[in-house]
Amino acid sequence: MNALFYEGNHSFTLKTVETQPLREGEVRLKMAYVGVCGTDVHIYHGKMDARVKPPQIIGHEVSGIIDALGEGVTGWQIGDKVTVRPLHPGPEVAADNGYRHIGQHLKFIGIDSAGGMQQYWNVPAFSLHRLPENLSLALGAMIEPLAVACHDVRLGELKAGENAVVIGGGPIGLLIALAAHQKGANVLISEVNVNRIAFIESLGIQAVNPLEKDIVKSVEEFTHGAMADVVFEVSGVQAGVSTMTQLPRVRGRIVMVAIHSEPKAVDLFRFFWRELKLIGARVYEPEDFEEAIALAASGTLPLEKMITQISPLSEAQEIFETIDKNPAGMKYLLEIV
Amino acid sequence: MNALFYEGNHSFTLKTVETQPLREGEVRLKMAYVGVCGTDVHIYHGKMDARVKPPQIIGHEVSGIIDALGEGVTGWQIGDKVTVRPLHPGPEVAADNGYRHIGQHLKFIGIDSAGGMQQYWNVPAFSLHRLPENLSLALGAMIEPLAVACHDVRLGELKAGENAVVIGGGPIGLLIALAAHQKGANVLISEVNVNRIAFIESLGIQAVNPLEKDIVKSVEEFTHGAMADVVFEVSGVQAGVSTMTQLPRVRGRIVMVAIHSEPKAVDLFRFFWRELKLIGARVYEPEDFEEAIALAASGTLPLEKMITQISPLSEAQEIFETIDKNPAGMKYLLEIV
Ligand SMILES: NC(=O)c1ccc[n+]([C@@H]2O[C@H](COP(=O)([O-])OP(=O)(O)OC[C@H]3O[C@@H](n4cnc5c(N)ncnc54)[C@H](O)[C@@H]3O)[C@@H](O)[C@H]2O)c1
Ligand SMILES: NC(=O)c1ccc[n+]([C@@H]2O[C@H](COP(=O)([O-])OP(=O)(O)OC[C@H]3O[C@@H](n4cnc5c(N)ncnc54)[C@H](O)[C@@H]3O)[C@@H](O)[C@H]2O)c1
Ligand SMILES: [Zn+2]
Ligand SMILES: [Zn+2]
Repeated sequence: MNALFYEGNHSFTLKTVETQPLREGEVRLKMAYVGVCGTDVHIYHGKMDARVKPPQIIGHEVSGIIDALGEGVTGWQIGDKVTVRPLHPGPEVAADNGYRHIGQHLKFIGIDSAGGMQQYWNVPAFSLHRLPENLSLALGAMIEPLAVACHDVRLGELKAGENAVVIGGGPIGLLIALAAHQKGANVLISEVNVNRIAFIESLGIQAVNPLEKDIVKSVEEFTHGAMADVVFEVSGVQAGVSTMTQLPRVRGRIVMVAIHSEPKAVDLFRFFWRELKLIGARVYEPEDFEEAIALAASGTLPLEKMITQISPLSEAQEIFETIDKNPAGMKYLLEIV
Repeated sequence: MNALFYEGNHSFTLKTVETQPLREGEVRLKMAYVGVCGTDVHIYHGKMDARVKPPQIIGHEVSGIIDALGEGVTGWQIGDKVTVRPLHPGPEVAADNGYRHIGQHLKFIGIDSAGGMQQYWNVPAFSLHRLPENLSLALGAMIEPLAVACHDVRLGELKAGENAVVIGGGPIGLLIALAAHQKGANVLISEVNVNRIAFIESLGIQAVNPLEKDIVKSVEEFTHGAMADVVFEVSGVQAGVSTMTQLPRVRGRIVMVAIHSEPKAVDLFRFFWRELKLIGARVYEPEDFEEAIALAASGTLPLEKMITQISPLSEAQEIFETIDKNPAGMKYLLEIV
């Protein structure tokens, strides 16, 4: 079978390899689509070489069909259409507080172990979620980032009628905005990339460019002075962090979705003054996957439109180069044929 | 009557003035005790001259006896023993989100208007809380900071059996620790002042000096690896902010009590990684005053021991100078005779 290997230093190579033997509790998937995540681009840039040792197969936004069942697997059948929740919990420690999805010894499948950019992939059966008949395999590969968005909206306790501001309209920010909109919230995205703004607006979501218009004023107008009930920080930059505390009303919530690898200057006075809440949110729990699948299957979200391009796995190298050149693209899918 | 005026530039003068006429809805208090708050010391240092225009009477941690009732005041009688919740809500705006205790147009009585360091003080009847017979007037002047502590513990949703770490063992941090301990939590204070550590330990509360022993290790040991359910940041310094994110377990809460006048470097990655929550907390709501009064009246807290010194109002100038010289002192009360 074919498998794509990250070889370090901005390069991938497609190789022919043997399929791996199935272990107890695993299933073999015949892969259909794998989405390219921002983390995969980080890996491509060599920024995660300490964690991802080349040569390694990556990819964790996937869809596929069950091809074989390992020993002890029940509840699944060959031919089932599935996606993978790429979390492998390790031994539990007390400080995990019972939260298996982000425990200290968690391994992220596709980063800490081989990923889905190959024709056949063995994964633990506990990581599977069933995709309904009416959901295409292409959209099945978008369930993982949509589950991130569902998790963020859930942890932000966003309710119908509330005002939500999303700082950063990349794939994750946009999915958060769509999930929030679907929940009945009034949603405004703050985004600096003009091509992304145009795309976001084409989906019927309001966007504002903080470089062109004062963002506090914009939110005041958008909310008729009430300000935001929930702000999602999904930009990952200092400007986003400096803005996030200015937008919520008293006792408003800020959901920290972005991964800030360095400490950032935060207006802690504002947390005190307005009794704001900051809520860290990381990946997803099983219920978020179920919600994302139901949402995608409902057909109400413009997920198809978010797919910028679908290319065969053999063109992966070009796709990563294209992504680098086009910061306005949304979701690139690799089709595994 | 006598009244103490802050005159700017580290100086107070006691003057003889007329009592003010009572307005509708006000009561006149014959003042008993006024505590000196960190904010009063800030005012004394001239750091709040933009807000507190000298000459001004200050003081907002008070006890007294009702001496006269203004027009329209019901439910109170001359001779009632009371304390004051020094918040005067202004016109409500949408972004207040219905929270009257920290609305945009809130005035803080004793900072934005005349305070309690005078023999007779007129305050709105809505600001009064009744002190029970068995609670001394001296302890009545400690209800305000204790209400801050009750508010912080309540917003932190601290429960019996949980592990709490308080960063900064000044008067507010210590009161938080005592209220948390009373709630049935296991409490550890992190404090750098050795005299304060000795005092805290004399009250039966565990304290650790982060300059002498690694604070993360200390909390690991104290919690048998479970780490903190709730951390209270009450130090107001960067070292406290850098520490606060290292101590909670997954989904642990951090209550931001300290007033950080400048933005601080915050480890936002840790919020994401462990799904931490930061909860801003400011002053109190009426229920916090009621809880503080019940707690003080129960006699279970060593509040008497927290009183470092009681001096007559006429010695206020010396007391402020003493506080500057003795950073280990806890609560100084002025007795109004
Ligand atoms: N919490 C989680 O589990 C989780 C999961 C996936 C991704 N993430 C993180 O979420 C973040 C977003 O992911 P993404 O794939 O959408 O990334 P992205 O880089 O495509 O999106 C970030 C967007 O923010 C915009 N931006 C930059 N500066 C801005 C500013 N000052 N104001 C407003 N917008 C600004 C950029 O133009 C970009 O569109 C990243 O930090 C990523 O690591 C977190
Ligand atoms: N949220 C509110 O409504 C509210 C109300 C009152 C006071 N406050 C604020 O609470 C804070 C504490 O008030 P206070 O009167 O107790 O002040 P304080 O200055 O007496 O107490 C701070 C304590 O922190 C200690 N400290 C300094 N560096 C430390 C470190 N690295 N680690 C651990 N401890 C350290 C100091 O030695 C001191 O004992 C202040 O910032 C004050 O403005 C907030
Ligand atoms: Zn991803
Ligand atoms: Zn005070």
